[in-house]
Amino acid sequence: MNFGKESLKKHRKLAGKIEIKSKAKIEDAEDLAIFYTPGIAAVSSEIAKNECKIWEYTSRSNFVAVVTDGSAVLGLGNIGPEAAQPVMAGKAILFKEFAGVDAIPICLDTQDTDEIVKAVKYLAPSFGGINLEDISAPRCFEIEKKLQNLGIPVMHDDQHGTAVVVLAGLINAAKVIGKKLENCMIVINGVGAAGHAVALAIDEFTKGKANIITLDSKGAVCRNRKDLDEYKEDLNHIINEGNICGDLDKIICGADVFIGLSVGNVLKATMVKKMANNPIIFALANPVPEIDPVEAKKAGAKIVATGRSDYPNQVNNVLAFPGIFRGALDAKAIKITPGMLNAAAMSLASYVESPAIDKILPNPIDKKVAKAVAEAVRKEAIKEGSIRPACK
Amino acid sequence: MNFGKESLKKHRKLAGKIEIKSKAKIEDAEDLAIFYTPGIAAVSSEIAKNECKIWEYTSRSNFVAVVTDGSAVLGLGNIGPEAAQPVMAGKAILFKEFAGVDAIPICLDTQDTDEIVKAVKYLAPSFGGINLEDISAPRCFEIEKKLQNLGIPVMHDDQHGTAVVVLAGLINAAKVIGKKLENCMIVINGVGAAGHAVALAIDEFTKGKANIITLDSKGAVCRNRKDLDEYKEDLNHIINEGNICGDLDKIICGADVFIGLSVGNVLKATMVKKMANNPIIFALANPVPEIDPVEAKKAGAKIVATGRSDYPNQVNNVLAFPGIFRGALDAKAIKITPGMLNAAAMSLASYVESPAIDKILPNPIDKKVAKAVAEAVRKEAIKEGSIRPACK
Repeated sequence: MNFGKESLKKHRKLAGKIEIKSKAKIEDAEDLAIFYTPGIAAVSSEIAKNECKIWEYTSRSNFVAVVTDGSAVLGLGNIGPEAAQPVMAGKAILFKEFAGVDAIPICLDTQDTDEIVKAVKYLAPSFGGINLEDISAPRCFEIEKKLQNLGIPVMHDDQHGTAVVVLAGLINAAKVIGKKLENCMIVINGVGAAGHAVALAIDEFTKGKANIITLDSKGAVCRNRKDLDEYKEDLNHIINEGNICGDLDKIICGADVFIGLSVGNVLKATMVKKMANNPIIFALANPVPEIDPVEAKKAGAKIVATGRSDYPNQVNNVLAFPGIFRGALDAKAIKITPGMLNAAAMSLASYVESPAIDKILPNPIDKKVAKAVAEAVRKEAIKEGSIRPACK
Repeated sequence: MNFGKESLKKHRKLAGKIEIKSKAKIEDAEDLAIFYTPGIAAVSSEIAKNECKIWEYTSRSNFVAVVTDGSAVLGLGNIGPEAAQPVMAGKAILFKEFAGVDAIPICLDTQDTDEIVKAVKYLAPSFGGINLEDISAPRCFEIEKKLQNLGIPVMHDDQHGTAVVVLAGLINAAKVIGKKLENCMIVINGVGAAGHAVALAIDEFTKGKANIITLDSKGAVCRNRKDLDEYKEDLNHIINEGNICGDLDKIICGADVFIGLSVGNVLKATMVKKMANNPIIFALANPVPEIDPVEAKKAGAKIVATGRSDYPNQVNNVLAFPGIFRGALDAKAIKITPGMLNAAAMSLASYVESPAIDKILPNPIDKKVAKAVAEAVRKEAIKEGSIRPACK
C-alpha cells in the first residue's frame, strides 16, 4: 500500500483527524443552566477562591498541548506551523487512542525561542501537560529548559520519547547477546534533539559507566573541538571521558553499539566489520536508515533496529509518549524527570517477555504498552515527590 | 434546582466537560502508517507546497479557539485565566452541540493587550476562527481590532454576540408594538464591551437613523465630556447626534427603548413612567437585572427582556455565537463584518414566526436556530466577498 496516497485520501475525506466531544448532554433549559450560565458561575467562583480546584472541576487535568513551531518536522525539515499540523494531530489521536489523553495540536506561528517560551507560558492554564514536538536543535533544548518550572510536565518528545524507546530496545538487545550496557562502547551518530537525549538517557541508566561517544557531521564531539554549541559542549563534561576525537570510520572501531539518528547510508559495511563481536545497530534515520538492515546483517550485525515498520525491531515513539504523559497526569506530576524517563524505559523493556534478536521492543500497535509505561512513570513521580500537593 | 450546586457536582463527576475524539480508528499497523508515520509525511508535504491545503486536509477548518484572559468573566469580574476555564469550556460544548463547531478553551496567563494579540497570532495556524471572550473593556476593543487582518474570523462575543441577540429582540419588539426602530429614541445604559457593540449594531441596522444615547456610570456619553477613552470618544462621532448630556433620570425622558448592560436595580419605576408610550425595556444585567421585570411591567413597560431563563424573552448569546461561527467557517470567511452580524440579527429575528410581547426571541435551547443564523451569515460573507480564495 502507498501509505502517503492513502493518508492524503483519508485526511481529505475526514477533513482532519480530531474533533471535540462534549461530555455533557445539552438537551433542555436545565442542562443549559447547569453547564453554562447561571450554574457555571459557581464552578468559576470555586476556582477563583482556590486555584487548585481547576484540577478537579475541569478537563485541564487530562489535556495536553502538542506544541510545535514546524521547524524540524519528520524528515521534512523546517516546513512551518501549517504543514506541521497533520503530524501534531496524528500525535493527538495516538494520545487518545493509546492512553486516553486529550491532546490538541498547537502549531505556533513563530520560531523565536523566547516567543515560543512565552506563548507556552500563556497557554499553560488550559493544559495539564505540554508535549513539545518537532522543534529544531539547539533551540529545543533551551525552550524545554526554560519551561521546566511551569508546574506541569513539559517534555520535548523528539528528545525524550525517542530516548526512552531507544534505551528500552538497547536494554533488551544487550540482554539477548549477553553483554552489560555498563561495559559497552556506544557510538551515537547524530547529536540533534534525539541523539543528545539518547546519550544522556544511556548515561543515566548505566550510572555513567557506559563509554558513550557522540558524533555530529564534523566528527566526534570531544574537548578538542572549538565549534561546539553549549549543548554539545555540555556533553564533554558528561560522556566521552576518554576524549576520543575523529570521524566515524575511526570511532566505530571496537564499538559494541551503533545508534544512528542522522541521515541515510552513512554506516558502511566495512565499518560494521570493525565493530566488536555481536554488534548492535540502531539505524533510525527515516525513511532511509544509516545502513540497510539486510546489508548490516550480512556485515556481521547481530541485532538491527530501525524506525521502519517493514523491518523487525521498530523504534516508534508511540511506545513511549502516550504512557509517559498518562503516568505524569495520573501522578499529578509537576515535571518529567530523568528518573521518570528511566522508569519508562525499564518498564518498556521488561514488557517484552522473551527478548530475542528480532524482538527487542513491543509491537507499536499494542495498546497495553502505554498502561505499563504509565504505571512505572506514575510510581516514580510519586516516589520522587515531583507532584502537586493535594488541594486544600 | 440550585444550578450552581448541581453544576459543581456534575463538573466534578465528569472532570470537566470536553474531550478529544479521534475521527480515525487506529487498530493495526496499517492505520498507524496511514495516520502517523510514514504516511502523514505526504499530507505535510502537500501543505508545505501549498499552505492553502491545510483547509482541506486538517481539522483546522472546523476548529475555533475560545480565548480569554479571565479579566471580565460573567458577573464575577477579573478572576483570572484558571477560574475562567469552566466558562470557556461551556462555550466550547455549546459550539459543538448547537453548530458542530469544534472549540477549545484557551485561557491565557497574561492580561497585557499586546501580549494577548501576539499570543493569538501565534496560535492562528491551528484554528479556523477565534472567539475572544470575557476580556474587559476597553482592552477588548484594541485586541479585537488588531486581530482583524489575521485571515480568519476573530470576534469578541461579549460585544457582537450580545449585540446580535439584542438587535434581533429589538427588531421583534418594535414590530410587536408597531414602532419603527429608525424613529426610536434608544437609551443604552452601560458602555462596556456589550453596550458599545449594541449601540453600533443598532446604528448599522437603522442606517444611522435611530436616536441612540449611551450612558456610563458618569452619565451620557456626549461631546462635553473630557473623561472619555478613545472608544467612547468614537461614539460621539457616530451616535447621539443631538449631543444630549446628563444622567439617566434626565435622558430616559421620552425614550422608546431602554437597554441595560450595566448593574442591577439602576432603572427606577419613576424613570419607566417618564418614557414614551409602550416602552421597551431590556434589563440585561446578571444575575440582578436593572429593574425587576414585574416592577417594570407595573410601571408601564410593554415588553421586557432579561438575561435570565426564569422570565420570558431571554437574551442569551447561545442564540448567536454558534451560528455566526458556523456560517463564517462554512463561507471560508476571513473576517466577521458588520454586514454579517446584521444578517445574523435579522435571521434570528425572523426565526420567530409570530413575535409577541412575551416572545421576541427564539428559545435558547432550540438547536435549529444556529442553522438559520449560519446560513444568513454564510450568504452575506459570500455576497460581500469577505472570503478566502479557493485553493489552487
